[in-house]
Amino acid sequence: MRDYQSQCRVLTEEDIDALEIGSGILGTGGGGNPYIGKLRARQAIREGHELKILPIEALEDDARIVALGGIGAPLVSFERLKEGREGVRCLRALEERLGFKADAIGCEEIGGQNSMEPLITAAFAGLPVVDGDGMGRAFPEMQMTTYAIYGHNSTPSVMCDPHGNAVCFEHAITEKWHETMARACVIAQGGASVLASAPMSGAFFKAHAIPHSYTQAIGLGQAVLDARQAHEDPIKAICEREGGKHVFSGKINDLKRHFERGFNVGVASIEGLDDCRGSVGEITIQNEFLIFRRDGEMQACVPDLVVVLDLDSGLPITTEVLRYGQRVAVLALPCHELLRTQQALDVIGPAAFGFPELVYRPLAETA
Amino acid sequence: MRDYQSQCRVLTEEDIDALEIGSGILGTGGGGNPYIGKLRARQAIREGHELKILPIEALEDDARIVALGGIGAPLVSFERLKEGREGVRCLRALEERLGFKADAIGCEEIGGQNSMEPLITAAFAGLPVVDGDGMGRAFPEMQMTTYAIYGHNSTPSVMCDPHGNAVCFEHAITEKWHETMARACVIAQGGASVLASAPMSGAFFKAHAIPHSYTQAIGLGQAVLDARQAHEDPIKAICEREGGKHVFSGKINDLKRHFERGFNVGVASIEGLDDCRGSVGEITIQNEFLIFRRDGEMQACVPDLVVVLDLDSGLPITTEVLRYGQRVAVLALPCHELLRTQQALDVIGPAAFGFPELVYRPLAETA
Repeated sequence: MRDYQSQCRVLTEEDIDALEIGSGILGTGGGGNPYIGKLRARQAIREGHELKILPIEALEDDARIVALGGIGAPLVSFERLKEGREGVRCLRALEERLGFKADAIGCEEIGGQNSMEPLITAAFAGLPVVDGDGMGRAFPEMQMTTYAIYGHNSTPSVMCDPHGNAVCFEHAITEKWHETMARACVIAQGGASVLASAPMSGAFFKAHAIPHSYTQAIGLGQAVLDARQAHEDPIKAICEREGGKHVFSGKINDLKRHFERGFNVGVASIEGLDDCRGSVGEITIQNEFLIFRRDGEMQACVPDLVVVLDLDSGLPITTEVLRYGQRVAVLALPCHELLRTQQALDVIGPAAFGFPELVYRPLAETA
Repeated sequence: MRDYQSQCRVLTEEDIDALEIGSGILGTGGGGNPYIGKLRARQAIREGHELKILPIEALEDDARIVALGGIGAPLVSFERLKEGREGVRCLRALEERLGFKADAIGCEEIGGQNSMEPLITAAFAGLPVVDGDGMGRAFPEMQMTTYAIYGHNSTPSVMCDPHGNAVCFEHAITEKWHETMARACVIAQGGASVLASAPMSGAFFKAHAIPHSYTQAIGLGQAVLDARQAHEDPIKAICEREGGKHVFSGKINDLKRHFERGFNVGVASIEGLDDCRGSVGEITIQNEFLIFRRDGEMQACVPDLVVVLDLDSGLPITTEVLRYGQRVAVLALPCHELLRTQQALDVIGPAAFGFPELVYRPLAETA
């Protein structure tokens, strides 16, 4: 095991408070409820565990990074809490299968509770988490990481549930097959498990991970907290920091949301308020907020971030706690450039989500 | 690897012809289409592979037996042929996971194509198949083997599909959990895969397997062939040999059959013919024929064998080829005594199939 300790930043409870908000914003409604993640992370800190971030630049090329995260539907993980050691069981079983130990833990998706899962598992295992992730946001399926998009073969992987069951996906012929089999299995396991993927090299991770995600998410959350403390507009603070736009304000007046194929899917309709009065907003959901339309016209879509915030507090709202009558702000934030290549769009563009008629226009270029 | 070669019986194409019929009868409609199994076994023989049966008594106590079989719905495996080497890939991956080689192959269920699967895999691997199995018939779920009933923990196991995907069920907290996860995964894989279970010792196998299943099935099939050749009644020959009863004759006049949760399920209604004229028979199906009722009254049920034969030829009919208008004979055959203990009935009695109101009365005691 490498000694990365001296180069790590140890997170405080205040950092975790900020990460809850930042990962909630970047989660675009998904990635698991960040509040529950925060409570788990805080408990780990109070039990004496160190939650540590390692700068991505510190990684040696031949380091071995095991990325992990929760898999399932946000709705399930919100209602049924994790047993808590699923990630550690995954890591240990995978290490045993591989015959070597991981040097550091990676994050599959920075969005939502999945920002916390690697920190907690790594802390239990005495390892750091690399400051980066595979999405720069949250996406509903496993093949949607930059790791997979840029060529990492994520099997063998190990998935563990709260009951004590463990499954190793020995070999999947494609990343999509890995997703298909793991999705079926996680539904059988009750809908909320943890999965640790085949290790990546430090060189691969530095080239293909979204860098500095933890720093970004903590900074973003801190900006919201600072704005609230200073009685300034947190929504403005987010847009300025992320180069995004506040595209809609309104009240949720219709919500179709159901559990299908292991996902939360649905549509939220928003009646315009303030300067959006007379307009209707609509958000398409698959675990995350995928597409925002105003009066039928697409304003933002994957891979850019469609974010829903409480209109007054500026705090993020996840898909499973969305409800009729909420007054919300819809933001569109540009995604990282690694998500905008043609190679990436084939996997995470609107067509990959079943909307081939939509043409993705990068927000970063139109802002 | 032990040298069991000298003690083995090498099966001929004639033996396979008999096994097709015998395993079809014992399959009670399920276990995968035996005709397709026969074609695959015959091809293996013609390619120069030896399909070998090892007497169960020859097993040393510390021998390691890996049992395997097809998993999925008979309907799928009938329409989509196996790639052919799924079983070998399972065996090799499991051996690698375990760190040792199997001494012999075991059969999970003697019924249907699942009698052929171990023979073919073992032949490719140069191993014998022990003359015994875990059901003495076919059942739809994995926890329904005598192996599982009498205490074998069947994980780690490996499941391979025709595409090249491989999944290792590292640990299941119960046999039922193993079934639940594997069933979800096999549906994701397309509905017809092969699964090899954690090895059993020779001592365990000798104590808890249904002994001499292959000899029984080949002998039973041969008895049908002999009766047909001698223009005698094959149905009578089956009943005499197995101690069973010919409980109904009639024409299928209604058939509800659908694919649900990875199984063929349904109900077949039979209009009485000959001395059953005026009566109505009804068979409940879940991959296998589970229950036979005459005029609403239960005549036979699991774990005893409900067998459907072509009324004229005496050849077995599997659930996926059952159709309107077929003239059939329904037989009830007593199951092996290992399936009749209270421990077994908890897993394979009518209540376990969702019929708690039915009281199982062993055919062996009422005959």
